[in-house]
Amino acid sequence: MIYKNLDQANEAVIAKITDAQPFLIDVVPAKTVIKELEGRVLLHAGPPIRWEDMTEPMQGSCYGASIFEGWASTKEEAEKLLSEGSITFIPCHDVDAVGPMGGITSGNMPVLVVENREHGNRAYCTLNEGIGKVLRFGAYGDEVVNRLHWIKDVLGPSLSKALGKMHEGMNLGVIVSKAITMGDEFHQRNIAASALFMKDIMPYLLEAEIPHKDLRQVSKFLADTDQFFLNIAMAYCKSVMDAAKSIGEGTIVTAMTRNGNEFAIKVSGLGDRWFTAPVNMPKGLFFTGYTQEDANLDMGDSAITETFGVGGMAMIAAPGVTRFVGADGMGAAMEISDEMEEISVGHNQNLAIPTWDFKGALVGIDVRKVVETGITPLINTGIAHREAGVGQIGAGTVRAPYDCFAKALEGLVEKYASEEDN
Amino acid sequence: MIYKNLDQANEAVIAKITDAQPFLIDVVPAKTVIKELEGRVLLHAGPPIRWEDMTEPMQGSCYGASIFEGWASTKEEAEKLLSEGSITFIPCHDVDAVGPMGGITSGNMPVLVVENREHGNRAYCTLNEGIGKVLRFGAYGDEVVNRLHWIKDVLGPSLSKALGKMHEGMNLGVIVSKAITMGDEFHQRNIAASALFMKDIMPYLLEAEIPHKDLRQVSKFLADTDQFFLNIAMAYCKSVMDAAKSIGEGTIVTAMTRNGNEFAIKVSGLGDRWFTAPVNMPKGLFFTGYTQEDANLDMGDSAITETFGVGGMAMIAAPGVTRFVGADGMGAAMEISDEMEEISVGHNQNLAIPTWDFKGALVGIDVRKVVETGITPLINTGIAHREAGVGQIGAGTVRAPYDCFAKALEGLVEKYASEEDN
Repeated sequence: MIYKNLDQANEAVIAKITDAQPFLIDVVPAKTVIKELEGRVLLHAGPPIRWEDMTEPMQGSCYGASIFEGWASTKEEAEKLLSEGSITFIPCHDVDAVGPMGGITSGNMPVLVVENREHGNRAYCTLNEGIGKVLRFGAYGDEVVNRLHWIKDVLGPSLSKALGKMHEGMNLGVIVSKAITMGDEFHQRNIAASALFMKDIMPYLLEAEIPHKDLRQVSKFLADTDQFFLNIAMAYCKSVMDAAKSIGEGTIVTAMTRNGNEFAIKVSGLGDRWFTAPVNMPKGLFFTGYTQEDANLDMGDSAITETFGVGGMAMIAAPGVTRFVGADGMGAAMEISDEMEEISVGHNQNLAIPTWDFKGALVGIDVRKVVETGITPLINTGIAHREAGVGQIGAGTVRAPYDCFAKALEGLVEKYASEEDN
Repeated sequence: MIYKNLDQANEAVIAKITDAQPFLIDVVPAKTVIKELEGRVLLHAGPPIRWEDMTEPMQGSCYGASIFEGWASTKEEAEKLLSEGSITFIPCHDVDAVGPMGGITSGNMPVLVVENREHGNRAYCTLNEGIGKVLRFGAYGDEVVNRLHWIKDVLGPSLSKALGKMHEGMNLGVIVSKAITMGDEFHQRNIAASALFMKDIMPYLLEAEIPHKDLRQVSKFLADTDQFFLNIAMAYCKSVMDAAKSIGEGTIVTAMTRNGNEFAIKVSGLGDRWFTAPVNMPKGLFFTGYTQEDANLDMGDSAITETFGVGGMAMIAAPGVTRFVGADGMGAAMEISDEMEEISVGHNQNLAIPTWDFKGALVGIDVRKVVETGITPLINTGIAHREAGVGQIGAGTVRAPYDCFAKALEGLVEKYASEEDN
């Protein structure tokens, strides 16, 4: 390799992360930027998975997407198509995309386009659907599908026009560095970033040629959607971590994701190879009427936020979230961040955390450190009902399983041992 | 008195504070709600003061207000009117109002109308003028006066229309309790509350009949003005502390304010009597090109925020602000809040502070405790240039002078001693 040693390779990976310049530049139908979405194709969260292996909420999302696309008009029709194999599945991660929870993305869904100006790459993510019944948690009724149509017809095009009025798109680093001082960790809590996003985009929405009725609906939706920024944060982190991956060397985790079945990671020295292990069950707080018994296994590409160094890796930034995810206030949040520090290479001073005495957010989960210490990344996550159609029932935390890090380390040993041989 | 003892009286005062229900209900020209503003009258911050005793930045604000009102067309004309005594001065606090820095308020300036639904009283404050040259810091040039006209003609009426579309006004308690979990202390830092305010009002601005051009300007102004909520917070706190004052007994501070010359407090047991002492010089960080030498003495009604229990009294909620005001991160912020706890009666659980392990903001500065411990309230404050016309040159902290608390305690001793005699 061109680096003197693994630490030097990791430094290059870290530089790609801390130097990144992600801008939100547009919102467009997914199929216009992801050519793989031609025909009957769905993207999903996590590493590759077959229809029959998907947990129910991910299957529920597939029903909803099939109805939204007009491939089926009922759940039963959709189920037939899906189980007879007439719909192709591709992981979001394989096509520069990420998706929350089920991650189910179809061609006509609008996606956020985030461009990392430092590296020149782009990443995509669907728009946050707001509160109530939502596709990403496995709901697929009329409410869900109608809202997807509104997002396609009104929200997406309006945001696209507003972003078009911005000189060079929206500099997401500015929002992220502000919001981390405002109690957001960008996975379970995005209230500050969402409000800042709305604040920043409103003048441009008003400058663009958008019907007044649409403006009213869009402003109401943005005002009501405290997690709106989550999907932007995901595309942001994906654009950064794909740039980091391009270094092609080192022991830094460049992706973490789950498909409800397997947890999977990628490592900087091993390109696009997935290292998997069975996912864990998230623990946390449940909405009234639901218990741990109802919870689905962990899923979603949203752990890209932890891969980048926020979410559960930045718990200390979000003391307000610690109770919601089952931790106990400042002390517990500090303990988690101190623990996560042990498996990280450094701090990202672009993201100074006041509650951590202005130390930067963590950066660079080192596979070697995870295996050495036995400490696995902590992920803040939403919890879906195990049955299709119900939706979100709570939120909590989940640990990445140790085994995928152990397997990745074996892969790294093989690679670098054989390089030494040559 | 009707209470068994001072502690019980103080409990009644505290209940008025914690039970308060302030709603922002309208924005109207000051003269329509403050009848004292008929003719050539200006309100000012702090206890009563004569023109010749005002420091230069407050005088600068008077020039600007006189030009804005059309009483004068130049600084020189304004100066003549002011120095010959043709303009009457009234403290904001005397007419249910508060004003930041100079606090200069004239009849045609729009004011926020905050109604405390629990007690039925109202409080008023001018709108935040945004960034750059502003009247409150003593600037009075064309830029300042033109913006005051825009605030009068566009911003005020637009907000009024939007608030009119809300069912019962804007529940400020909701914004304040959210924003204190987002790093705001509502004096030096209002970025979260301002963003939440904009998020909440935008859908109503779009629902109201407001020309599109005005909507664009208003949304741009709100998006650019991170301290917009400060003035709302001030009216909020004033409406609460005036209700607390109505108890008429006890040893709780119900107002703290400064006129650039004197620092003054009111105490729950002694109604509207001011207890004064010379103000201190604020210390902090200065904008490039300015130093402590350029600083004006402390001024403004904004210390009503500390009286209520936020601002410097809630430093731990805003670790992001500690560096800006000269303190040193979490440790220093915690020390300040722990110190302020010693002079306060309790905690306000409506304002749970995550960074303080969800302890509520402090409530009820007890004059007895201040005198006993020698600890005086710490106030976060903007710093004006000592010369009229320059404006803000920094921000920092300042201590309330001990003497006004000592004098107030003497007043309380006299009152309650004579009551015992009867």
